[in-house]
Amino acid sequence: MKAKIHITLKNGILDPQGQTIQHGLEMLGFTGIRTVRAGKLIEIVFDGISREQAQQATENACKKLLANPVIENYEFVITE
Amino acid sequence: MKAKIHITLKNGILDPQGQTIQHGLEMLGFTGIRTVRAGKLIEIVFDGISREQAQQATENACKKLLANPVIENYEFVITE
Repeated sequence: MKAKIHITLKNGILDPQGQTIQHGLEMLGFTGIRTVRAGKLIEIVFDGISREQAQQATENACKKLLANPVIENYEFVITE
Repeated sequence: MKAKIHITLKNGILDPQGQTIQHGLEMLGFTGIRTVRAGKLIEIVFDGISREQAQQATENACKKLLANPVIENYEFVITE
């Protein structure tokens, strides 16, 4: 089982990394960019557990370690 | 138009951030984890351009700034 986790900053939280990327793109001549937001992508491969167990473990991992619930949202999908 | 970009390390490239996350999860009692890989998630919102232009701009942005083609892969989807 594989969990693909997206961790993004909540709306309203300042994103200096995204702003830096946006500035960099504009310096390179890209136009028409309204916003850039940067987040994290984490992939966990589980061995020998069911889909339900992977779902539960990923939810716990996000809550306990991967995401900061004060400023970040997380979402994930479990695939084979 | 919104581009959702995933940037991941190529297979075979050492991923110390992923290893640290895996170690952290194991210290917290999580079991059955084979590997953890960490990557980047970048969302770009474009104003007033077509889907084809957004596709082209995102492809160029990945090549020129966002991904390091020596060690990273990128993929993206364009949505409304």
